[in-house]
Amino acid sequence: MNLIPKRALISVSEKSGIVEFATELVNLGIEIISTGGTAKLLKENGIDIVEISDFTGFPEILDGRVKTLHPKVHAGILNIRDNENHQKIMKEMGLVNIDLVVVNLYPFEKTVAKEDVSFDEAIENIDIGGPTMVRSAAKNHKYVAIVVDNNDYNKIIDELKKGGITYETRLNLARKAFTHTAVYDALISNYFNKVCNIVFPDEISLPMRKAQDLRYGENPHQKAAFYKSPLIKEVSVSTSKQLHGKELSFNNIIDINAALELVKEFDKPAAVIIKHTNPCGVGTADNLLDAYNFALECDPVSAFGGIVAFNRVLDKETAEKLKELFLEVVIAPDFEEGALDILTTKKNLRLIKTGDFNQIKDNEFDVKKVIGGFLLQDRDLENFDREHGLKVVTKRKPTEEELEALKFAWIVVKHVKSNAIVYANKNQTVGIGAGQMSRVDSSVIAAMKARKPLKGCVMASDAFFPFRDSVDEAAKNGITAIIQPGGSIRDNEVIEAANEHNIAMIFTGMRHFKH
Amino acid sequence: MNLIPKRALISVSEKSGIVEFATELVNLGIEIISTGGTAKLLKENGIDIVEISDFTGFPEILDGRVKTLHPKVHAGILNIRDNENHQKIMKEMGLVNIDLVVVNLYPFEKTVAKEDVSFDEAIENIDIGGPTMVRSAAKNHKYVAIVVDNNDYNKIIDELKKGGITYETRLNLARKAFTHTAVYDALISNYFNKVCNIVFPDEISLPMRKAQDLRYGENPHQKAAFYKSPLIKEVSVSTSKQLHGKELSFNNIIDINAALELVKEFDKPAAVIIKHTNPCGVGTADNLLDAYNFALECDPVSAFGGIVAFNRVLDKETAEKLKELFLEVVIAPDFEEGALDILTTKKNLRLIKTGDFNQIKDNEFDVKKVIGGFLLQDRDLENFDREHGLKVVTKRKPTEEELEALKFAWIVVKHVKSNAIVYANKNQTVGIGAGQMSRVDSSVIAAMKARKPLKGCVMASDAFFPFRDSVDEAAKNGITAIIQPGGSIRDNEVIEAANEHNIAMIFTGMRHFKH
Repeated sequence: MNLIPKRALISVSEKSGIVEFATELVNLGIEIISTGGTAKLLKENGIDIVEISDFTGFPEILDGRVKTLHPKVHAGILNIRDNENHQKIMKEMGLVNIDLVVVNLYPFEKTVAKEDVSFDEAIENIDIGGPTMVRSAAKNHKYVAIVVDNNDYNKIIDELKKGGITYETRLNLARKAFTHTAVYDALISNYFNKVCNIVFPDEISLPMRKAQDLRYGENPHQKAAFYKSPLIKEVSVSTSKQLHGKELSFNNIIDINAALELVKEFDKPAAVIIKHTNPCGVGTADNLLDAYNFALECDPVSAFGGIVAFNRVLDKETAEKLKELFLEVVIAPDFEEGALDILTTKKNLRLIKTGDFNQIKDNEFDVKKVIGGFLLQDRDLENFDREHGLKVVTKRKPTEEELEALKFAWIVVKHVKSNAIVYANKNQTVGIGAGQMSRVDSSVIAAMKARKPLKGCVMASDAFFPFRDSVDEAAKNGITAIIQPGGSIRDNEVIEAANEHNIAMIFTGMRHFKH
Repeated sequence: MNLIPKRALISVSEKSGIVEFATELVNLGIEIISTGGTAKLLKENGIDIVEISDFTGFPEILDGRVKTLHPKVHAGILNIRDNENHQKIMKEMGLVNIDLVVVNLYPFEKTVAKEDVSFDEAIENIDIGGPTMVRSAAKNHKYVAIVVDNNDYNKIIDELKKGGITYETRLNLARKAFTHTAVYDALISNYFNKVCNIVFPDEISLPMRKAQDLRYGENPHQKAAFYKSPLIKEVSVSTSKQLHGKELSFNNIIDINAALELVKEFDKPAAVIIKHTNPCGVGTADNLLDAYNFALECDPVSAFGGIVAFNRVLDKETAEKLKELFLEVVIAPDFEEGALDILTTKKNLRLIKTGDFNQIKDNEFDVKKVIGGFLLQDRDLENFDREHGLKVVTKRKPTEEELEALKFAWIVVKHVKSNAIVYANKNQTVGIGAGQMSRVDSSVIAAMKARKPLKGCVMASDAFFPFRDSVDEAAKNGITAIIQPGGSIRDNEVIEAANEHNIAMIFTGMRHFKH
């Protein structure tokens, strides 16, 4: 049955639209109960309201900490209108119905988003009365409408003018209400976990907010949406802005994330080309054009339809060069005006502006979904074991040029799916072996894919070599230096193999599996 | 400062331990206020309590819907003990402090976990008064202790006997309390979303519960934990039981998930070997031993240190065979007693019992994490476009044996990371090309890895062929039939290539990217 409310309770922290909404309600003959700042605002705008303290017969006390937590309010909301006993009690006690509850909550999120917010200020911004009314009204949605979002005001007025608020609308409002309190408490809970230094609490709830419905998911038969975490500040796919081109797809977003996280690791101008979440070419140089040319040279066939990310403002020369190839997405901190003119001639090409890279690393988990559960872990933010540094384990030390190439290859291999092998010189990847079930296969593939001679290149492996076979394979290809975590029970055998081939080898003390 | 409570409010749905706890509190001189069923139980056990209605001077009404939602209760909890104005008001109004709140919530989760629970019953089990007291007390943890978990009773008594509840404990109890209400409302919100048929709401909160702290994450320098979703029923890594062996690692859990989801797809006895989340061998046969031998034959080198899953109770013969190879994990619905005896001789080998596979598919998202956000999508539960069926697009139709092999290869390729190519006969995978940045590379790798002749085998591709090159590559290897989604703008060219080589080709109308 449609709801025609007699009495509304209004108590909002976000006040935009509330005067107009309340005015319409009063015109429709609905009595309004209100509290604190909301009551004041409505009265100032000539709207007749009943103060909550007059309604309950109990004063607002403790600086507003206790005002709506009263049985008259909650009986008014929660009583079952079809239940004779309930109605008998309501009548006997002189209690009256509240049929429409318009409440939004203290801005806990905005408060903790402020830099240097104190713990006491955060705690003071935890709303108690608000969520209680929201939850009461949502529970009793069969008879009560709960409005937590000012975007719903018009719909409510429309329905009231057309004969009342429908059950379907009330059910959906209740759904929104519980989602709102769930996210609200998740934010509070995460804040407390952080304050208490609890990384993996017994229970956890991950709050998120929809940024975009997607046309489909990883595949066209899967529906999907992109959600963002509240409170994020780190430059990432989630904080970036699309300047041009077709709508982002699910796979674009994954690939932009992969491209950006890799290109963010470089100090020098760098270019990264991604396909199916793996880099298929990475280059660094003194300018972006050279870096891109280096990256492209690695695997121009796979680069077709790829995602390219840069760590400097994109210039015109590089834009001209990018135009020659079919690409899905180009990502940069910003685009020179001329560069934008060049690239926007391609109607579909998606252009993503990240803004200047910042040094912030948001305190968030890496999450892997398994059926029925989630694996939560720290992000893989380190590169090598800081305590032990890079340790040369062979007779021969790497030359300076080799060392530069090794460090470059090591950063790249961290972002390649395991088992991962990267061959590189100091400017570019030369062969990338990704996602194989055995390490030696990845070295064979990386060599197979190389278009330039591997002679004089270096090799990076995301995990230790279980056997000497990959080192022998590398030597056959003319590799002169290797970087890898070390830690195999056959390290000695592997080091011996390197020494036999006069290969310089570095242990990083840190593995970088990525799946 | 340590808290020495004068007055406790106890209202629990889960009553175990509460009598003992309350007895201790009374012995420590703490006055107890209680409600409904809790009050009755405590009185029956000879514990002196004050009924909530006597405390508030207001009756419990509306079948208990309104009992604790009273300003005397919430002023008693929420007043700031250091604030003169607050204390003046408390005194003037004859209000007294409540310093210890012991509340747990109506079992919404248990209620909705029941089969055929009605919507009304679920709604009735949404607690309003409980969460309000929990949140009030947690907000004011500077002066109040909130206990939501009966596992904390002993700790509280201990501290009380040692001079009071510390600030640190109260802060941590508040943290637990907000986490508890966050998860509670997330469950309610998800239930409403389901009822309203809203798949991707504007806001969402994913609740989870820790099943296990892990030694580390994907890599040793990353901390990690395994969380499970409440309410799961589907046979999966999350519902399985470890019978033997070393503790599961982060990577074990990912791989068990991958192995199990693939082996669940087969009707015939099947064996799946996983390394780094990709299958490196899959076999089906009339019995598990043959199936395992078929699977192992595909890539015995990669199988070393692998994860093996079966879809039938593991028998002794297969167990004997498994013993020959170093494996990390063996997974089966169950283990014959003899089989268990054989495998448990390997001290470290992890044995996972899933129980009989059920047909349940839990209503959950697939989740991919990007920095600052989440991609949510439907799970990839279909195999091919049901409406159009498997469509032969070449002059030659596949033979029955080819068709069997094509269907088998299609299931496997769905579970291989993209770009994915699988060569197979009707019993086993023969070559698997995984995780490459170009499709043709995956076909080359799949062929390169094949140990058995590819002549007479079939090929599956997880997405359409952008060019005819992969078909030509397949023909060169003696492949006689191909299964793929179709849908390329060059489908005609690809079909023509197949016809030229007398290859039979099937379009499935459904892509299976997996990243």
